[in-house]
Amino acid sequence: MKHPPPLALTLGDPAGIGPQLAAEAWRRLRHSGEGTFFWLGDPRLVERAVPVTCIATPEEAAAAFADSLPVLPVPCEVDVIPGQPDSRNATATISSIRQAVEYALAGRAGGVVTNPIAKHVLAAAGFPYPGHTEFLAALCDMPGEEIMMLASPQLRVVPVTVHVSLRNALNTLTTERIVQVAEIANAALKRDFGIMAPRLAIAGLNPHAGEHGMMGDEEITIVQPAIDRLRAQGIDCRGPMPPDTMFSAKARPYYDVAICMYHDQALIPLKTLDMEEGVNVTLGLPIIRTSPDHGTAFDIAGPVTETCRADVSSLLAAIRLAGEMSAYREGRGS
Amino acid sequence: MKHPPPLALTLGDPAGIGPQLAAEAWRRLRHSGEGTFFWLGDPRLVERAVPVTCIATPEEAAAAFADSLPVLPVPCEVDVIPGQPDSRNATATISSIRQAVEYALAGRAGGVVTNPIAKHVLAAAGFPYPGHTEFLAALCDMPGEEIMMLASPQLRVVPVTVHVSLRNALNTLTTERIVQVAEIANAALKRDFGIMAPRLAIAGLNPHAGEHGMMGDEEITIVQPAIDRLRAQGIDCRGPMPPDTMFSAKARPYYDVAICMYHDQALIPLKTLDMEEGVNVTLGLPIIRTSPDHGTAFDIAGPVTETCRADVSSLLAAIRLAGEMSAYREGRGS
Repeated sequence: MKHPPPLALTLGDPAGIGPQLAAEAWRRLRHSGEGTFFWLGDPRLVERAVPVTCIATPEEAAAAFADSLPVLPVPCEVDVIPGQPDSRNATATISSIRQAVEYALAGRAGGVVTNPIAKHVLAAAGFPYPGHTEFLAALCDMPGEEIMMLASPQLRVVPVTVHVSLRNALNTLTTERIVQVAEIANAALKRDFGIMAPRLAIAGLNPHAGEHGMMGDEEITIVQPAIDRLRAQGIDCRGPMPPDTMFSAKARPYYDVAICMYHDQALIPLKTLDMEEGVNVTLGLPIIRTSPDHGTAFDIAGPVTETCRADVSSLLAAIRLAGEMSAYREGRGS
Repeated sequence: MKHPPPLALTLGDPAGIGPQLAAEAWRRLRHSGEGTFFWLGDPRLVERAVPVTCIATPEEAAAAFADSLPVLPVPCEVDVIPGQPDSRNATATISSIRQAVEYALAGRAGGVVTNPIAKHVLAAAGFPYPGHTEFLAALCDMPGEEIMMLASPQLRVVPVTVHVSLRNALNTLTTERIVQVAEIANAALKRDFGIMAPRLAIAGLNPHAGEHGMMGDEEITIVQPAIDRLRAQGIDCRGPMPPDTMFSAKARPYYDVAICMYHDQALIPLKTLDMEEGVNVTLGLPIIRTSPDHGTAFDIAGPVTETCRADVSSLLAAIRLAGEMSAYREGRGS
């Protein structure tokens, strides 16, 4: 039987908790069947903690995975001191991402799972992107097409506006962008999440969704027209929903994803419910990409030993979800 | 032993679920010792469901409470049809609130617990206030001094701006108002919640609290100066906190109240965590006032019978909290 393509886990910032998490994730998943992955990193960073097999191609990962962490070597140029990032190692961080995306685009990796990076470390080395996601979109030759989903066991959210001030979110929110984001989310839920007829909940912007225009009119002028256009395409969506009640335990079972108007409208409920198991999913690109929903955590990064102090929950969730998405996309989903 | 003053529960809209909830709350609390109350309502609405004692003064409530619902009569002018509000009964709704506040101001009621009203029904009868809270502030001769707290078993939040559009919230947010709201919340936690040294978490406004001005500068220009002024008074406050992570299970134990910049920043986490047990508390007035965090629910209102279809959780929580606050204020708190 041919193995499904393994997932590609990137190096991230080598001075952060990425190496520890890679080793710990392998320990937890090696016998689980939940996600075979290989790490695009420096084997010297993990070999004292776990058995390592250096591989030259993704195809070698499956055979090694039960007994050792498959590592496709991406060497760091200078010695890594945990907790002390060094922009001379940015080349390795970036190269790891680039190779992972290339394998995914070629169908040789089932998806890309990214370990956390530190923007200021990469920026100091001349990296021109504000973050991972924009770099991935550029590597896929689809700049601006990426959208962000946060997924946890209890909730999936997609913010229409993301890393801008709240005022800029108000100023840039348009019917067109809501429609575009909702279409991408709808298509992704069908293709990669096994949901045949996705149910979308479209949030209002204002308190009580504006209460008939008494507290803001964006629901009338911007959000409702987007809902009308989505429904005309046959997409199952409801809204504009009052933002404060739509994430309650009673309301959540009635939709598969919440389309949110701004960053915190999406991330407050998600992190309030599931701080540890939230996964960041990039939709709208040809590749599957997930990442844990935390940063490099330089403050707790240490040498990679047999005990891992960092919480691996979010990375495990990211690997499992990428594995599930990959299976659905290839028709192996359950 | 002298009884502590009972709580005053208002009629609310008589065609809503208020009468059902009043009867059900008495059934649940009659033997609990958690809150003796009397209802300022029309005895005809509840007397087929529960035994009723009509009282003439709040002082008679305590003796009656174990065996019957004490009702201080506020007659409805026209027959009440559940689910069909009639603005001719607005007089009773308003009179009930007015009397409850008078008893509380006189120290003859320990606090006021309000059943839900429908703004459009009262407005049709000429009621000039946008809601309960503004009316209560006017009755206390302190218009504009009221602030809203939402309290649940897991979280207390106070929004600095409330029932305005998100754009107006941005345009009206000031350092002065944050300081004022935080001072009122701090004083209330000491006086009415038994918290000697309240810990305040002050939210940022923008994603990641602006990330050093990269995504909005209100944290620098508006929020931080408020924190500085509060600290200069000796108030224990931290912030500006990233709004998406501050409500997580790990973060919540480190503060007693979250001071939030806008309505949904406060209400999304509260209702996501505790939709049923949220209590609306009015702070900044001389009286204690709580209310359930739901509306009149005309759609499920029915005749008051022995079985109550409406969920009484929030009203029970409101009565219990008002009872606790009253006890703390009088030095009986535990």
